[in-house]
Amino acid sequence: MIDPKLAQQLQFIVEIDKLKNILRQNLITDASRRENSAEHSWHLAMMAIVLVEYAPPEVDLLRVIKMLLVHDLVEIDAGDTFCYDVQGNEDKNLRELQAADRLFGLLPPEQSPEIRAIWDEFEAQQTAEAQFATVLDRLQPFLQNQQTQGGTWRIHNITPQQIEKRMAPIQAFAPALWQIIETGLEASIKAGYISAPNSSPDSSPEAIPDSTFSVPELSSI
Amino acid sequence: MIDPKLAQQLQFIVEIDKLKNILRQNLITDASRRENSAEHSWHLAMMAIVLVEYAPPEVDLLRVIKMLLVHDLVEIDAGDTFCYDVQGNEDKNLRELQAADRLFGLLPPEQSPEIRAIWDEFEAQQTAEAQFATVLDRLQPFLQNQQTQGGTWRIHNITPQQIEKRMAPIQAFAPALWQIIETGLEASIKAGYISAPNSSPDSSPEAIPDSTFSVPELSSI
Repeated sequence: MIDPKLAQQLQFIVEIDKLKNILRQNLITDASRRENSAEHSWHLAMMAIVLVEYAPPEVDLLRVIKMLLVHDLVEIDAGDTFCYDVQGNEDKNLRELQAADRLFGLLPPEQSPEIRAIWDEFEAQQTAEAQFATVLDRLQPFLQNQQTQGGTWRIHNITPQQIEKRMAPIQAFAPALWQIIETGLEASIKAGYISAPNSSPDSSPEAIPDSTFSVPELSSI
Repeated sequence: MIDPKLAQQLQFIVEIDKLKNILRQNLITDASRRENSAEHSWHLAMMAIVLVEYAPPEVDLLRVIKMLLVHDLVEIDAGDTFCYDVQGNEDKNLRELQAADRLFGLLPPEQSPEIRAIWDEFEAQQTAEAQFATVLDRLQPFLQNQQTQGGTWRIHNITPQQIEKRMAPIQAFAPALWQIIETGLEASIKAGYISAPNSSPDSSPEAIPDSTFSVPELSSI
């Protein structure tokens, strides 16, 4: 017989295993398959450890990591919404709020509000921790796309203007990392992964299939 | 042009993406496929957040989480060694030390020792943080096996005695969680997922293929 509080915690732990089956649009770096949201969250938490020096000095690293670990849990019910999908993003908030109620509600009542608050804080984007977590959540798929010859940018014909807009939190909240975006966009245009600004859509490279191809060197970033 | 220190950090971040391709023996909870070490590490870090109250009160949660996030990185070079594989475990230490030298050596020299020390501390098992991290690293596959009708226990004919021995750190370092093992082993023997202690090997259930099957309710734990 398991103590009822512990049984609730185990139920939550077993339930969140489902995040391993939520597929994102992004490919993993060897371009062999799409990334799932659980391994994505791990990668972001590792990036927080490695890149914390570029966050504002008062940032609480533990809180940033907690946010990155929980920020995608709602996708278990709400699915992953592609960031450039205008229609899918219209009802995203409502779907995710309902998911948060159900998932965090699995936890014991004395613990649920604390973990729910981490997710709410990430969503609200008002604290330095939430903002730095978002910086990493934008940077990681940028690197993945860069490493997979344009990845989802190329598949969905995303423009440099759309990418710059999506990456704006990096410039705002971790300006020392903005050099990655500037250099990476320039290299990606040069390599033909994305179209130059204001070029005709006809000059975009062909959409590439979801299969393995060689990975460019990081030095091209 | 990227600042050289930041370029080294990005090289490390891109390199560790390979952990997403390291497959463990364990299945994910819906038994649809084997788990990879990146999503496993994410799951452990989430467990640390949820179960920290069962650790000794002085435990530094940030350090526990850091350990769980980095503890399997060496598998990128050394591969995952199945815990019940006696031969594979003989040269495991040497293979993993070489991997640690290469991987943590990708980081800038002023950062590499700090992150390497987290991995060394986990391996040495001398601090409360390393010991609680190990508790979770043992508990998670126990839950996965329980949820997948015996999972790797059944595939490899693992005995309850072997499982109890493997789970011993839970009894030693987080005794409040030992009830999960006791109750789970009893339920698994009753359900025929594993053989009763001292029963003849012939009475073990057939090894099951690596395919989808129905998932038992957590209430059976």
